Formats: sequence, C-alpha cells, structure tokens
Amino acid sequence: MDLQTLIQSITQLDKQAMDAAQKRQAQLAKPPGSLGRLEDLSIQIAGITGKLHNHIRKTHLLVFAADNGVVSEGVASTPQSVTLQQTVNLTRAKTGASVLAKHFGDEITVCDVGVNTDIKEPAVLNKKIAYGTQNIANGPAMTRDQAITAITIGAELAQSIDADAFGIGEMGIGNTTTSSAVLSVLLDLDVETVTGRGSGLTDDGFRKKKQVISQAIAINQPNPSDVVDVLSKVGGFDIAAMCGAFLGAAASHRPVVIDGFISAVAALCAARLCPNAAQYFIPSHASYEIGYHKAMEALHLEPIFLLGMRLGEGSGCPLAFRVLEAACAILNDMATFDQAGINDEYLEEIRQGDQFTVEGVR
Amino acid sequence: MDLQTLIQSITQLDKQAMDAAQKRQAQLAKPPGSLGRLEDLSIQIAGITGKLHNHIRKTHLLVFAADNGVVSEGVASTPQSVTLQQTVNLTRAKTGASVLAKHFGDEITVCDVGVNTDIKEPAVLNKKIAYGTQNIANGPAMTRDQAITAITIGAELAQSIDADAFGIGEMGIGNTTTSSAVLSVLLDLDVETVTGRGSGLTDDGFRKKKQVISQAIAINQPNPSDVVDVLSKVGGFDIAAMCGAFLGAAASHRPVVIDGFISAVAALCAARLCPNAAQYFIPSHASYEIGYHKAMEALHLEPIFLLGMRLGEGSGCPLAFRVLEAACAILNDMATFDQAGINDEYLEEIRQGDQFTVEGVR
Repeated sequence: MDLQTLIQSITQLDKQAMDAAQKRQAQLAKPPGSLGRLEDLSIQIAGITGKLHNHIRKTHLLVFAADNGVVSEGVASTPQSVTLQQTVNLTRAKTGASVLAKHFGDEITVCDVGVNTDIKEPAVLNKKIAYGTQNIANGPAMTRDQAITAITIGAELAQSIDADAFGIGEMGIGNTTTSSAVLSVLLDLDVETVTGRGSGLTDDGFRKKKQVISQAIAINQPNPSDVVDVLSKVGGFDIAAMCGAFLGAAASHRPVVIDGFISAVAALCAARLCPNAAQYFIPSHASYEIGYHKAMEALHLEPIFLLGMRLGEGSGCPLAFRVLEAACAILNDMATFDQAGINDEYLEEIRQGDQFTVEGVR
Repeated sequence: MDLQTLIQSITQLDKQAMDAAQKRQAQLAKPPGSLGRLEDLSIQIAGITGKLHNHIRKTHLLVFAADNGVVSEGVASTPQSVTLQQTVNLTRAKTGASVLAKHFGDEITVCDVGVNTDIKEPAVLNKKIAYGTQNIANGPAMTRDQAITAITIGAELAQSIDADAFGIGEMGIGNTTTSSAVLSVLLDLDVETVTGRGSGLTDDGFRKKKQVISQAIAINQPNPSDVVDVLSKVGGFDIAAMCGAFLGAAASHRPVVIDGFISAVAALCAARLCPNAAQYFIPSHASYEIGYHKAMEALHLEPIFLLGMRLGEGSGCPLAFRVLEAACAILNDMATFDQAGINDEYLEEIRQGDQFTVEGVR
C-alpha cells in the first residue's frame, strides 16, 4: 500500500460506538464523570474498534531500532554500539521495557530498520534499510525514498500483527538529537526549547548537541509542511518507522500508546501526515525530556503517569496497557443503576426507603 | 495492642536494604535515574520489607464502610442508603474499585465499621462500632473511645492479612464533608480551600456543605495537635479505621497505597500519629477533590496517575499495585551492566569495539 492510500484509509472514530459507550458510562452506578479519564478512554476505544464492549488482552510493544550518523558529532553520552546491544537485549527480556512487557504478558517485536551492523540474533526482525543514517549535521539523514520505505515498514508491521493495542518504542543512540531536530522544524520552535540532555550529557555535550541540531536544520532546510521531507533530512529510520506504526495501528483500528519523547515526536509526525490518526493515540508517561511536552501539547494530549521516566524503548507502554484494560473493565463489568439495586429480601427489609436512582446520585 | 504500643512499633525503613537497592539500581544497564519513580519505589519497598528483592503478588484492597450523621444537614448529593448498597456491591465486583480489583486479581475486604443498618451479607466483615456517627454540626461524631476502637479495628485488620501490598479505600456517603473538616483542622486551612463538591453538589448544596463544616469545627473545637480528638469530633468511623489500617500496614512492614481524598486525609492522620508510618505510603491517582492536594503536600507525596478520578472506594489502588509490581520487576529482572554485554560469538565479531560500561552510559 502506498503512503497516500494508507493515509486516506484512516477514518475518524466511529461516532455511533462512542455514543453508545458514552450512554453506558452515564448508566453505570457512579457519580457522572467520577472515573474521569478511564471513562474517556473507554469511549475512545469504542470509537477506535467500532464496538461498545472491548477487551485489551493481546497487547503488543513494537520497538524500532536504528543508528544515527549524527552520533559522530559527539551528541550522545552513550556509545553507538549500545544500539546493537540493547536491540538484542530487548528480545531477551533484559532491558527496562522488555522486563516490564514480560512481567505483564505483553508481546514484543523488535524491528531493525537501520542498526549499523548486521544482527544475527534471529529474534530481531530484519527490516534494515541501511547501516545507520547519514550525519544530519552535514546533509540529509536519508533519501526521501528511504523515509517512505521506513514509514511503510512500520505501518505494514503494525497492520500485520494481531493485537488489541499497540505501544510504540525505539532503540537508537542519538535519537533524542534527531527527535529534537524534527520537533523544532515541525513546531517552528527554538532548538533550545525542545532539546534535553538525553541519557545524561555533560554541559559541554549539551551545548554541542543544540549547536549540531541548529546546524542540521540550517544546512538541510527541511520544509515544515512536508513531514516526509523533515524526517528524511533531520530524522532517523527509527522515528520514520514509528510514525508509520502509528499510522498502521490507526488504519487497522487499534489503540496505540505513545511512550516518551521520541515516540511522541513520531506520533506528531503521524498526526501531521494524517490528522485522523491522532484520534487513535493514547498517552502514557510524562517524559523527563522537555521536548516531550511540546509534542504532546501539539497533539492536544496529556500524559497519564507522572513517573519521571526517560529510558525510552517503549518502557511506558506496559503500564499504559493496564490503564486501557482498566477502562474497558469499568465499561464492561460495572453495574448500571438498574443493576446496582440490592434486591435481596433480607437487605430490602432494612433499607431506609430512599432510592439509589440516577437523579439521586447526580 | 493499644494505640501507643502500635505507634511505637512502627520503625523507620531499613536503611541497609535501601542502600542495597540503590546500589543495584546503579548497576542496572540504563542511564542512572532513567526509570525515575520506578527506581525510587523499588528502593522504598526494599526499605519497607527489609529485603532487596521483592514481589508484589498478593495485593489487597481494604475498604472501610460507615455512615455519617452529618448527611442529615443535606451535605451530600447522594442518598444515605447508597452506603449500604455500594458496601454490598463492593463484595460482588459490581462497583468501580471492585471491578478493577477483580480484573487484576486483587483481593478485597469490605469492613463495616459503622453503616447505619445491619448488613446481613456475609461477605461484608462486621466490625460495626455504631449505626453511623452523630451529626458533627451539633456535637462530636463519636466518643474518644470509639475513635480509638475504629483505629484499632483498622490496624488489626491490616496486620492480620497476608498481603504484599495494601490499598485503603472507603464507602460512606458524607465522608468528603468529614474529611474536609478533619483536614481543615489538622492543617489549619480555611474550609474554602479544602472542600470540594463530592459526588456532585449543586451550588446551594456546596455552600451549605462549607457552612456545615465551619459550624462543626466551631462547635466541637477539636484540638489540632490531638489527631484522635479531631477524628472523634469531626471525623468518621471510616476515616478513623482507614487511619488505623495505614498504621497496621506500616507496623507489619507492607507498602500501603493511598487512594483519593478521603484516603489521603486518613493517611495524614496516620502520619500525624506516627511520622515513621508515612515512609510506608505510596500515592496513586490525583483526585479531582481540591483537598486531596493539600493532604498530599502535607505528606510530601506526589500522585502517580493523572486520571481525573473522584469515585473513592479505593478505585485508584488496583492500577497503583501494577506500578509497584513494575518497580519490583525492574529491580529484580533487568540486566546489570555486567550482564548486558552481548557475549555471543556471532555478535562479538561484529561489535564496534566500544564498550557498554557504567562510565560510557553515564
């Protein structure tokens, strides 16, 4: 499927299913709105699937791994080989996100879209586009065709997997640099306001990182209204594939969880390519990276968790999947006002006479 | 056990276990601090149990139900019989908190400490102290002895249950009124700043509620430095028993989750009775009730979830239990830097030569 066809296939949420879910929430025996965003999520999920009753049982974390040529500028505190190492470790339940996924029974697919070495570990899905991107400080990260290929890989992967909900994560040393560059261009914001220290840069490293991002934007002159141009010039294979995965999840009517900063930037790219797609997104934790909040503001989303996390990998998704489960359980299993009455004779005889009615509780 | 003995039995957290947990977190293959509060929670839980490795498997929600005489003033939008009905429904997995507890496999104990009718449902634990409290607008809610009895019931219940973590919830129409009264006294704050609309009062009802709270405080003159005096004069059986449950959990070295507003006020009472106890507390969601934030500030705690919830019952605890599980899984199962190296020969041959070391990642 080509990108335009994919984008055009993404519909708005099912209004009828959302109305039914809204109506059911109003019938449940609780003060209206008292379950807050759990209610909103149950309505959103109904709109996504087109069904009133949903179950979030098969949860799937998609992690896209790639290297970034810009690390040669010294913008990352972590050596580049960590991309390879943690990509492999993600398949072995040794890293933060994969430990949590295993604990909670979430499936995980780790997809190599551009790690700079061949990975012989068969558990890593090989969709390598190139051995890392080019250095954005000197020119475009990749060709336009490569960016479209990355988006398509992500979309097709999401569309091909049987899951009730997705989470989108990444592994790629240097990708807070590329994410800040993409975000700065898309939102027309100063580099200063969208750039953090990543894994833990020194003051010198941090200054250098911001300077490199400014240089990359100045040299490449990406067109802010052309997301593919931005991704190809100052992005990375990981962000582009994640963007595609968000689109693929939306196209196949599954809710999709945004992890931290990089995931939020990829989600923003997807929303810019296809505004309807954003209706399928679910936030998770508030990343420690400052750019995260700019991306989420642009998406009109607020995080659910305040956990001070900044690991990436999709590490916020396993907990968010539990919130989706909770939202569906509330809608499916709570008693309605009609059902909440205690009809047992032995209790009836001692009741005070006042009634537990919708009016009474409102 | 008398209250003083209970309070004196609550120790500070185990420093040695916390140091060991802190050390292990620093050895795990991730940027230091990148899992934020999940790291902090794993260290806190180690301090609580005195063990480095912990598993949150048996999770238990304790819900204390009681009626409040003050509802005769018209301070609640919900009829009083809802206390009885939802107390029974909590044992049948029909209410918000009990639906979530059942979904996630959490145990639940519903304890009647003062519902104003006999409850013949055997699943409700009968520890009734009286048929509701007296109307605080006219005099004390209960005697000092009754307050101590309620605290003791809560403490002994928590101490008697085999669980890895507790959550503390309530069911009691009118208990946002009593909670606001207790909080106003304990923190010496204007009634206006600690009082919300509860389940959904009208403007008139809301004005009346604040006026009744002010009147209750003026008439009873509770002594702010004597928590038992405050609880007995303007509190309720539910809040007092919950306060005891927080103490009992701490005395028996189990983490204990604060739910929403009423739970936070009970936790604050426990912390005022025994400052050490607060070290065992874990926040969950940010309640919509304004008083919640005042109580949490006083406890120096920040919520984990932003879900806009205000249902009570302990409905925030099931999701918080998952966060505790996640924190323990990270500490137990993530690879250390030593273990994260990929020693497979086939990968070794393609590595770049740079090393994934503690220094490298810092």
